[in-house]
Amino acid sequence: MRYELYYQPSIQGRGEFVRLPLEDSGADYVDVARDPKFGRPGIMKFLENPSLEYPPFAPPFLKAGKLLISQTANILQFLAPRLGLVPKSEARRLWAHQLQLTVADWLYETGQTHHPIANLLYYEEQAAEAKKRAAHFTATRIPKFLGYFERILKLNPKGDDFILGKKVCYVDFSLFQMIEGLRYAFPRTMAKLEPESPRLITVHDRIMARPRIAAYLSSPRRLPFNQQGIFRHYPELEEE
Amino acid sequence: MRYELYYQPSIQGRGEFVRLPLEDSGADYVDVARDPKFGRPGIMKFLENPSLEYPPFAPPFLKAGKLLISQTANILQFLAPRLGLVPKSEARRLWAHQLQLTVADWLYETGQTHHPIANLLYYEEQAAEAKKRAAHFTATRIPKFLGYFERILKLNPKGDDFILGKKVCYVDFSLFQMIEGLRYAFPRTMAKLEPESPRLITVHDRIMARPRIAAYLSSPRRLPFNQQGIFRHYPELEEE
Repeated sequence: MRYELYYQPSIQGRGEFVRLPLEDSGADYVDVARDPKFGRPGIMKFLENPSLEYPPFAPPFLKAGKLLISQTANILQFLAPRLGLVPKSEARRLWAHQLQLTVADWLYETGQTHHPIANLLYYEEQAAEAKKRAAHFTATRIPKFLGYFERILKLNPKGDDFILGKKVCYVDFSLFQMIEGLRYAFPRTMAKLEPESPRLITVHDRIMARPRIAAYLSSPRRLPFNQQGIFRHYPELEEE
Repeated sequence: MRYELYYQPSIQGRGEFVRLPLEDSGADYVDVARDPKFGRPGIMKFLENPSLEYPPFAPPFLKAGKLLISQTANILQFLAPRLGLVPKSEARRLWAHQLQLTVADWLYETGQTHHPIANLLYYEEQAAEAKKRAAHFTATRIPKFLGYFERILKLNPKGDDFILGKKVCYVDFSLFQMIEGLRYAFPRTMAKLEPESPRLITVHDRIMARPRIAAYLSSPRRLPFNQQGIFRHYPELEEE
């Protein structure tokens, strides 16, 4: 099965949460908008095709044979059993998906820090409101989410190597990406808070050291963070 | 199976998206925080129990036998096959879940209109920012979401009676609730926009007329909308 991932070509964004497990599994996939054989028109062709039975609301979406799947957490829920990244039992899968949806909430709130009024406006048009929102996000929300996932790791009856059971699961890659992104966006905040979540940081490091992930991160396939993505670094949005 | 729903006792909120399909199916469930035999401490007991293996991040959560499930879309995905509210095929279930997650995004954005800076602050402390955010939400986001779901109904190869196939599915109840809530919160906006989404409004009406839903809506179990919920009516947040 060759998977086709459709996402914006210039940012990590939500697409990165799909790329990471695909890369770790050595899956056969094409990042359509970044492949010269496909290119950006491929995404537009999909979204504007009037005969499409299951049109996505927004990228990312994944084509897997005849299936077209959108919403990041939904894509991951579909891929995980096929990539060996989630246990078989229904209870475990529900639990993994709950954790992934909580990551999605965290990610959404992260993006709101630089766009608290409207995504259609430039940051500069909402910088004053962004400063207020980011102050609350760094003071109360980052600690709350970090603390929650740290607690989950501590509670894992199979040890704290990974978020669920004793093997890596798709949620671990998303947690890695959240830590990476928040370090880029809010470095002072993360430097202060990370010591309180040692298990979570160890999971981050464990994911980063996996051979295929390490190879991916040092390859041109890994886009750098930038000021167009969900994680953005505006120094004025952090406390001194 | 007797389901136990854990949610705040005084608002419809996210809990309502779970209550509606339970009510329509005539399922055996108890709304724990509103049941005098359980009461609010039941929720706190769960969230603070240090030995809980799968602690939710936030309500709502559902207890189903030994399973404890949180995140609204995840609860619905679990319940739907048991209540006969989703087709069997994987393709259809992925599609239904994608739609539900898009409703979740829409609902999240709705709540942000009155809390664009921080959920921990009062509305009055962020009323100026709320006015800006709500202006964009009513002008661009409500039309975008209404237009998307109207298009999905139009594309449904089995007709536009329901969002998926020819039978009711759990997403239809969520769409009903979005229309109900947005009418309460932004009546002028909805009065203006609804004529452009006739299929969606017809689905809303069809859901409202279902005997068990009609009975539920006129019962004391249905809480009224109020100014503590996700859907709030602040007249100053709409254009004249």
